[in-house]
Amino acid sequence: MDRYFAPGTNHLFVPGPVNIPDHVIRAMNRNNEDYRAPPIPALTKDLLEDVKKIFKTTTGTPFLIPTTGTGAWESALTNTLSPGDRTVSFLIGQFSLLWIDQQKRLRFNVDVIESEWGQGANLEILAEKIAADRAHTIKAVCIVHNETATGVTNNLAAVRRILDEYRHPALFLVDGVSSICALDFRMDEWGVDVALTGSQKALSLPTGMGIVCAGPKALEASKSAQSVRFFFDWNDYLKFYKLGTFWPYTPSIQLLYGMRAALDIIFEEGLDNVIERHSRLGKATRLAVEAWGLKNCTQREEWFSDTVTAVVVPPYIDSTEIVKRAWKRYNLSLGLGLNKVAGKVFRIGHLGHLNDVQLLGCLAGVEMVLKDVGYPVKMGSGVGAASAYLQNTIPLIPSRI
Amino acid sequence: MDRYFAPGTNHLFVPGPVNIPDHVIRAMNRNNEDYRAPPIPALTKDLLEDVKKIFKTTTGTPFLIPTTGTGAWESALTNTLSPGDRTVSFLIGQFSLLWIDQQKRLRFNVDVIESEWGQGANLEILAEKIAADRAHTIKAVCIVHNETATGVTNNLAAVRRILDEYRHPALFLVDGVSSICALDFRMDEWGVDVALTGSQKALSLPTGMGIVCAGPKALEASKSAQSVRFFFDWNDYLKFYKLGTFWPYTPSIQLLYGMRAALDIIFEEGLDNVIERHSRLGKATRLAVEAWGLKNCTQREEWFSDTVTAVVVPPYIDSTEIVKRAWKRYNLSLGLGLNKVAGKVFRIGHLGHLNDVQLLGCLAGVEMVLKDVGYPVKMGSGVGAASAYLQNTIPLIPSRI
Amino acid sequence: MDRYFAPGTNHLFVPGPVNIPDHVIRAMNRNNEDYRAPPIPALTKDLLEDVKKIFKTTTGTPFLIPTTGTGAWESALTNTLSPGDRTVSFLIGQFSLLWIDQQKRLRFNVDVIESEWGQGANLEILAEKIAADRAHTIKAVCIVHNETATGVTNNLAAVRRILDEYRHPALFLVDGVSSICALDFRMDEWGVDVALTGSQKALSLPTGMGIVCAGPKALEASKSAQSVRFFFDWNDYLKFYKLGTFWPYTPSIQLLYGMRAALDIIFEEGLDNVIERHSRLGKATRLAVEAWGLKNCTQREEWFSDTVTAVVVPPYIDSTEIVKRAWKRYNLSLGLGLNKVAGKVFRIGHLGHLNDVQLLGCLAGVEMVLKDVGYPVKMGSGVGAASAYLQNTIPLIPSRI
Amino acid sequence: MDRYFAPGTNHLFVPGPVNIPDHVIRAMNRNNEDYRAPPIPALTKDLLEDVKKIFKTTTGTPFLIPTTGTGAWESALTNTLSPGDRTVSFLIGQFSLLWIDQQKRLRFNVDVIESEWGQGANLEILAEKIAADRAHTIKAVCIVHNETATGVTNNLAAVRRILDEYRHPALFLVDGVSSICALDFRMDEWGVDVALTGSQKALSLPTGMGIVCAGPKALEASKSAQSVRFFFDWNDYLKFYKLGTFWPYTPSIQLLYGMRAALDIIFEEGLDNVIERHSRLGKATRLAVEAWGLKNCTQREEWFSDTVTAVVVPPYIDSTEIVKRAWKRYNLSLGLGLNKVAGKVFRIGHLGHLNDVQLLGCLAGVEMVLKDVGYPVKMGSGVGAASAYLQNTIPLIPSRI
Repeated sequence: MDRYFAPGTNHLFVPGPVNIPDHVIRAMNRNNEDYRAPPIPALTKDLLEDVKKIFKTTTGTPFLIPTTGTGAWESALTNTLSPGDRTVSFLIGQFSLLWIDQQKRLRFNVDVIESEWGQGANLEILAEKIAADRAHTIKAVCIVHNETATGVTNNLAAVRRILDEYRHPALFLVDGVSSICALDFRMDEWGVDVALTGSQKALSLPTGMGIVCAGPKALEASKSAQSVRFFFDWNDYLKFYKLGTFWPYTPSIQLLYGMRAALDIIFEEGLDNVIERHSRLGKATRLAVEAWGLKNCTQREEWFSDTVTAVVVPPYIDSTEIVKRAWKRYNLSLGLGLNKVAGKVFRIGHLGHLNDVQLLGCLAGVEMVLKDVGYPVKMGSGVGAASAYLQNTIPLIPSRI
Repeated sequence: MDRYFAPGTNHLFVPGPVNIPDHVIRAMNRNNEDYRAPPIPALTKDLLEDVKKIFKTTTGTPFLIPTTGTGAWESALTNTLSPGDRTVSFLIGQFSLLWIDQQKRLRFNVDVIESEWGQGANLEILAEKIAADRAHTIKAVCIVHNETATGVTNNLAAVRRILDEYRHPALFLVDGVSSICALDFRMDEWGVDVALTGSQKALSLPTGMGIVCAGPKALEASKSAQSVRFFFDWNDYLKFYKLGTFWPYTPSIQLLYGMRAALDIIFEEGLDNVIERHSRLGKATRLAVEAWGLKNCTQREEWFSDTVTAVVVPPYIDSTEIVKRAWKRYNLSLGLGLNKVAGKVFRIGHLGHLNDVQLLGCLAGVEMVLKDVGYPVKMGSGVGAASAYLQNTIPLIPSRI
Repeated sequence: MDRYFAPGTNHLFVPGPVNIPDHVIRAMNRNNEDYRAPPIPALTKDLLEDVKKIFKTTTGTPFLIPTTGTGAWESALTNTLSPGDRTVSFLIGQFSLLWIDQQKRLRFNVDVIESEWGQGANLEILAEKIAADRAHTIKAVCIVHNETATGVTNNLAAVRRILDEYRHPALFLVDGVSSICALDFRMDEWGVDVALTGSQKALSLPTGMGIVCAGPKALEASKSAQSVRFFFDWNDYLKFYKLGTFWPYTPSIQLLYGMRAALDIIFEEGLDNVIERHSRLGKATRLAVEAWGLKNCTQREEWFSDTVTAVVVPPYIDSTEIVKRAWKRYNLSLGLGLNKVAGKVFRIGHLGHLNDVQLLGCLAGVEMVLKDVGYPVKMGSGVGAASAYLQNTIPLIPSRI
Repeated sequence: MDRYFAPGTNHLFVPGPVNIPDHVIRAMNRNNEDYRAPPIPALTKDLLEDVKKIFKTTTGTPFLIPTTGTGAWESALTNTLSPGDRTVSFLIGQFSLLWIDQQKRLRFNVDVIESEWGQGANLEILAEKIAADRAHTIKAVCIVHNETATGVTNNLAAVRRILDEYRHPALFLVDGVSSICALDFRMDEWGVDVALTGSQKALSLPTGMGIVCAGPKALEASKSAQSVRFFFDWNDYLKFYKLGTFWPYTPSIQLLYGMRAALDIIFEEGLDNVIERHSRLGKATRLAVEAWGLKNCTQREEWFSDTVTAVVVPPYIDSTEIVKRAWKRYNLSLGLGLNKVAGKVFRIGHLGHLNDVQLLGCLAGVEMVLKDVGYPVKMGSGVGAASAYLQNTIPLIPSRI
């Protein structure tokens, strides 16, 4: 018996870890195996080939590292850069802040471009810096595609255009933790050199696998990068890829089978349909927020995130209370406001294996919590706004037509 | 990969089989075991003791039969009656119809009291028949506590009062398939002689266990009942109860562990709280139906069911289309109209392991389907009516306060 | 935590319920579903087609009944016979005894041919009775293919020859509970009219599905059979087969998906390879028994069972003690001696999803228990005799070559 | 369907990843959860307290890091040492070799004490080095408690005695990957400063959690250690320990619940009983090897490992063939010989959740494989030698007495 038992299902709407499909839970419901016998290398080989599709790359080399997103960040940085290297990084929320902190503590020389929380990366300043950097002292531009703390999606194509415009050779490193497999992401087309995500986000697996994909320029850089590394060293992986055994150390058997099932599901739905589904769910959530008369933390439409919405509460309400109450009364898990926006926003994660009715349940739950904390919400208003839009746009389920 | 894959969770709102709690799914995720070794008898002994609580009986003897509700019916009848015996039975919907059919085919002399579908059992006629039956030719009164086809709950206390008034010795046999563990049911207090349910209903298990509870008068009757029986014979169970091995044939190991987990959850929440939760969910559903401007198939408030609501659709809409579309477009499973009300009603099952946000999701889904089929529903109206009521009445989750 | 926790795996060698493959456990690890929506009928349709293969029939009609083997017996009898009908039945052990008891209590006129426990069905007497029965008063010959209590396999082809020789129209009803899917069984070739098994035997599923297959003559007989029946009535199934909804009452969703997985595994290995595997494991077990200097309860080689071996212990040993000790000290589950052979034999079940190394572990465990109870066994003798044979005969695993 | 399907269970006898108890598989069979809501911190708090028991420490601080044993190594080194620091490390097999490689690549100055593979750490040379190091240039002694490649267990108490004798302040860092929870290990008594293991070894979980325990001296050292680190930095954990939220980044929900179940099982059996069980299984395996006339790779009894046995094959046999054949013909997974002993030894892992009958099955399997590859083994000899010993020494299962 769980210590915090509640009747009915838990409604998991934090922006990660997200709901795992039953199909995937079943696939992982298994004993360990010898990872040196033929099945695991055969399975891994297929996964490495297939996982490239979610990055939309044919030239990248993926690494499935037994770690979290934080470890994936470290892998991206230490394999491509040397201590003292100048990076340009955007501070726009809690996760970009943490990545910047990591860059600093890993001894890179971080050139921070800060924006107000709720805004996207300031690409004008980036353009200025790139333009000014004739000496190519900037070794990497590091950007969080989707800032999970504020629900802000950055424009990666624009970053690439800036680098191209000035023919700047800086590496383009992208945190796609809360975007890849949910938002439009095109590694090859946008010339991303390293992209990464974590298994517990849009892939809808348990935590435990950092998925890093390195383009040819990044692999080349790894040959001379001087950062001290061992566990995260791509070179060890590459050595075992050549041997056909694939693993420098023991992988999680369960996560590998789970990833197979997760990719199967994504390909069954179609990656672009998955992205379209997230787009609809994101839009529906924003319509609800508007109907409630509340503000989106994201300041401009161009930055609206389709995986997470940070909702600003009126000053007389503590958003932490909303999150607590949602869990204590409705078995509904919402995301807290973090750091600068703690107490000021709560977050609705709408990514991963999720459908319209699930989201509408969540929105109905949020309405009840808002009422609980004294916000004068009209019951049904947000749900109605969202469902009116969804009913208009949701396709029939292809396998059921 | 399931052949009919759809993103997100399936929203299961048929009135059985119902959602299984994760805790129970985990408990059943296991290999077979020798059912003659000590663990299974020990487990069974506790279950037999504990299951009496959901019937609110201390004097009853429960039987956990590897069968469905239909088999449980047969067990109730053949153990207590002899061919040719007169039973009084109420025809008020599809499930009472099927039970009557069984009574006839098992060669009992069924005295049917029919009502319009949507009405409850006509107890006035029962009273007349009982009053007239000075010779005590009526051997049993058979009643479906909750008619799942129409969402009608019958008044069992009133039946008992009638029998008592006339000091009539007829057995009182109750189908509690869609009521026990969800609606107020009191075997001892109401003098029910045999009550029964199925594992896949409010107990929230898989199908496969018919749970029959026999009171002392029924056990006594079983000694002289002449109906031919073997598989369903209580006597074989009683023999093995005495031996302490409990099973005349092989039980499902998984269902036994599952039932342990299911009862643990019910007792953790508290049976009366479970019933109260169903009461709230039932009321909320009816408020939504009203807000949509639709009619409840159940004709009077006294018969409203808190486990299933049959919603009448306007004549220009085929309710079958609603159920199909819900499944094809929203991954929402609703109940069909059956037999006389086929095409005319669809059903929302709101029983078992379920909470407010789940129900609100379902109601939002129903609104979208209604729009799909051309009914002029105001989006959010039903959800809002329901959530306004629920927000007012739902308690904090005790384990989380 | 299980109340009877022990380190390591439980070694399940009772002759049912047997070990469930992990693949099947995974397939059943799921929530309930609406059984009236398209997936369940589609799944059922395929199962009904595929399950015929394990009976080796193309003309039979299968029924997947939510019941146990005992219920499957009742289904076979009540659908084909009328009260007072004469059946010929063989009493050779506990399970044939129970079936005879059922036949009597269901009011058939049972003509019992008894043999010593450890012997097969006496077919000479059958031949005499059939020869003498010019009036065709014998309506059915009922035989247990494999008597699980004594490890005796009967010769079904010989029964058919006898019936054919005398052109006797009696129905040929076969209990294949511990044989079908493990021993050579040929419904069509042997002219079996009804064959049945239970899910928890060689199919390696949980208990809960009685699988009955009726040939054309049996179906014809069901039209006039006068036995009272409802739950077990084939006619209700046939009605729903025609409608394409397949289920007269709610099936276990989990068992249906489990059966799909179980059949997939059986077909992957190949049914004849499955039978060959059982043949090897049976032979290996008997070699071990011989090496231990113990006697097989089965008196002649022609009756040796490849699914269960009943081992006779010396008079100074209580076989019940062996079974208890195996479980208490080695986490090894063996079968008890039943009824007449209680205390005198213990049983090793070697059916279902099982391989050579599992069996050898069991045999090593039995050696330790024999030593425990004072039998002067040479440690390693039985295992060595078995493994010498197995090493000579086991094929490479086809998927791994 | 698994691509490499085989009938029966896979017999997993590699020295990791090892068999997961069903109880633990069940506990992990679940959806994700919000790791910031109360249940996960509450669960983590208890785990951190309880996990200390498997290290036999009351003063240590544990870290549950989402990584493998390799990452746990890195965590132990980078948190306590600075680049250029002198470590003393023993090269006695593949895993000590890899750790030494890591120490070098992380820029420590490794003073390697090499022994022949099959021997334990040369503690005489250690004593000399420690004695000579008056200037305390040695900052850490790094030792693999149990070298998994050769089945050699080192004497940690003796290492501590040497350090104490010379009052040398070097940190004592222990890789307990294939020892902790299976072999006698006493962190506090032996003055171990950092000990570590991986979840997929004796804890019998999936891979994915590196468990590192730091003593007070190590924690103190971490304050001044100059190695660059972020993901593996203990300080981030300590910060969140203080906050009571415990996690600097997302943990695997499933592994946390799994660890709870795994520890519950270990404590139920009793840690010392677990160790005693490994001792018996190790001894039994060695008796089998002896009976087969084969040599143990481990050269002296004092180094015999109770978690893994490396068996030397005659020169005319390729041990790789044994491992391949075991898997291809018997569904038995054995460990390969690695690096210097590739082709020369195969390994039997006998650690984790395992019992006597499982091991005896494995040994019987090995006998068949030996016969396959042309080694003149007497069938049953090894199993008999092992079972004679086990039968003499195995206790009754306490919960079943």
